Amino acid sequence: MRVLIAGADGYLGWPLMQHLAARGHDVAGVDNGARRRWVAEMESVSAIPIAAPAERRAAFAERFGTEPAWWDGDVRDLDLVRSIFREWRPEAVVHLGECPSAPYSMIDAEHAIEVQVNNVVGTFALLGAMHELAPEAHLLKLGTMGEYGTPDIDIPEGFFEVEFRGRRDTLPFPRQAGSWYHWSKVHGSNNIMFACKVWGLRATDVMQGVVFGTRPGDEPAAPALRTRLDFDEAFGTAINRFCCQAVIGHPLTPFGEGRQRRGFLALRDSMQCLTLALEHPPEPGEYRVFNQFQEVYGLAELADMVARVAGEVGLDVEVCPVENPRQEAASHHYAPDHQHLLDLGYEPTIDIEGEMGLVLEDLLEHRARIEAHAEVLVPGVRWDGRRERVGWLRAPA
Amino acid sequence: MRVLIAGADGYLGWPLMQHLAARGHDVAGVDNGARRRWVAEMESVSAIPIAAPAERRAAFAERFGTEPAWWDGDVRDLDLVRSIFREWRPEAVVHLGECPSAPYSMIDAEHAIEVQVNNVVGTFALLGAMHELAPEAHLLKLGTMGEYGTPDIDIPEGFFEVEFRGRRDTLPFPRQAGSWYHWSKVHGSNNIMFACKVWGLRATDVMQGVVFGTRPGDEPAAPALRTRLDFDEAFGTAINRFCCQAVIGHPLTPFGEGRQRRGFLALRDSMQCLTLALEHPPEPGEYRVFNQFQEVYGLAELADMVARVAGEVGLDVEVCPVENPRQEAASHHYAPDHQHLLDLGYEPTIDIEGEMGLVLEDLLEHRARIEAHAEVLVPGVRWDGRRERVGWLRAPA
Repeated sequence: MRVLIAGADGYLGWPLMQHLAARGHDVAGVDNGARRRWVAEMESVSAIPIAAPAERRAAFAERFGTEPAWWDGDVRDLDLVRSIFREWRPEAVVHLGECPSAPYSMIDAEHAIEVQVNNVVGTFALLGAMHELAPEAHLLKLGTMGEYGTPDIDIPEGFFEVEFRGRRDTLPFPRQAGSWYHWSKVHGSNNIMFACKVWGLRATDVMQGVVFGTRPGDEPAAPALRTRLDFDEAFGTAINRFCCQAVIGHPLTPFGEGRQRRGFLALRDSMQCLTLALEHPPEPGEYRVFNQFQEVYGLAELADMVARVAGEVGLDVEVCPVENPRQEAASHHYAPDHQHLLDLGYEPTIDIEGEMGLVLEDLLEHRARIEAHAEVLVPGVRWDGRRERVGWLRAPA
Repeated sequence: MRVLIAGADGYLGWPLMQHLAARGHDVAGVDNGARRRWVAEMESVSAIPIAAPAERRAAFAERFGTEPAWWDGDVRDLDLVRSIFREWRPEAVVHLGECPSAPYSMIDAEHAIEVQVNNVVGTFALLGAMHELAPEAHLLKLGTMGEYGTPDIDIPEGFFEVEFRGRRDTLPFPRQAGSWYHWSKVHGSNNIMFACKVWGLRATDVMQGVVFGTRPGDEPAAPALRTRLDFDEAFGTAINRFCCQAVIGHPLTPFGEGRQRRGFLALRDSMQCLTLALEHPPEPGEYRVFNQFQEVYGLAELADMVARVAGEVGLDVEVCPVENPRQEAASHHYAPDHQHLLDLGYEPTIDIEGEMGLVLEDLLEHRARIEAHAEVLVPGVRWDGRRERVGWLRAPA
């Protein structure tokens, strides 16, 4: 299948290029380099050193026999997207080309606008080009479980049947996102749902849990094929950040009481799920929503788990909760469905604890890079608008 | 009260400036002139001649004793909005500064992006400036009943209590908008809801029905104080278009079978409702939704009503349905609540049929302007992406 990946230089995009190529798909990438710039703006780096885009493609050619088609460009540029569609004729588009950070979107009004415009316009340009030039193609869009927020009822996969005043209808499940970033993803989901209805496009909208991990497969990749792993407050996700903290002996910092519950999954399982969705496309006009995660955990529980696994490899770290910079429910009901991908054959390949061990192993050799940027490990972007590093709720011993 | 009106040069903004000034409020306006440019792009004009912005303000000064504070500028410009807030210190902001047209947003991908970015960013800049500089101010935002679409259950005012798998929660009512424009309003509503939650702002989101009419009060305004009335397919609303058609003897053109049902209200009642909302602001942190319309009608029913009223003043017109350029349910359940404004004291001042008579009376002297642009009376923007004028479903006799 001819698969165009938007955001092909990113945390998920780059390993997905390889994962799909290994399965015999023909892949192309487009990326404007924004993720590298955003992380630099946060005064951080990827814990795992990553090669420049051209080196990455050369290594890709060495591994898979040919360089992928590639555009250094911005998917907000409708004419660029049109020209890619004309030239390369994708049968599927995986849209990972968005700003994926809640804290980045909460820095100030300028950043909120940047994230919303980036994500809404990029998604729209892909939809517009599909409508004009590839109406049969399948859009696989990465959403987030964070679109749903934490309602006090179970979370279905996108839609639910409700009874109201004696009448029944099946409706989109209401979204209650918790940051300008998460709302940008809701806006995108709404636009995609309508594009399927009005233009007959087909799309899969993946409400992904928090991904973590260093390896898209069993073995670590060759250096120039490795994907990034961020640990700054904006682009690092919870488990990845805990692992980076553990590697340098920094206390692990769950936010608040740590009873917020979220769905998590390993990078390799994210690859598997996205591939399953691609290889089992929806019908023309169909808009389907997959909730994608492996297990639900509380944040403090995960920090304890990382501390335990770290202890097993001789890293002695304590868990020291910090003030929660976010505005979110301290404790809440959380029971999201996640059946659709299991129905397509999704089989989790490894448990969360086992994967944490591999992340720690892969990070150990890069301890010095993390130590050199250790100040980004404690958040300073607060949801109320203040820019002030959070304090300890329990100070390190 | 110090009220800043964004979109103060528009169909609702300009009469609202006067209506609020007449009630003793201190008003300021900001407008980038986009509505005048958009209507020109549709190769049309306002049926009622309107004065240039400076003449309007001079006439305002003559009527109310002083010119309103005014900025020729774009509310997408965050720094401009901040400087207005610093300089003029509004206690309330009425946001009418959006692109209000579904067909305009459906012209092509470029227009869709323009409308969504315009509406999302403008709304966001106002929210951001309020958060930074006027956290106690009240945002009165004009939404649209079209955000809800036509679900097969009753439509509450913004929120509903649902039971799902034995648990209950009060959730935002799911939106199922029917154009890129309508979705842009949903995106804005979602952002406002979150701004109230995360920043403690207060806002009223008015899901307005289709407004029609020429007069904000009982008497026609002095020429330079009159508001615009559009009849092109993008910026003309149903009843206004039917009235313009009637005035030049053009058949009235409901779309399809005309059994789509929508809520309607007269311009003067829109003024009354917006004023009520302003004079009864929500609590800090409160996000409230008002559904605002007077009566629900089917489109064919309204066309018949305009034809009847026109006949009474000697205008002989027939009703000739055309193909529906939109994608919308041909017939559907439609029972939206609209109690909140009635609870605040809203009293419809006149019936729809009576108001149609006044519109026809006011339009008759401008017959030549409408005739000169009669080709804009038949739509050519179709929801499936084609640009081709719709055909008659029943040809004129």
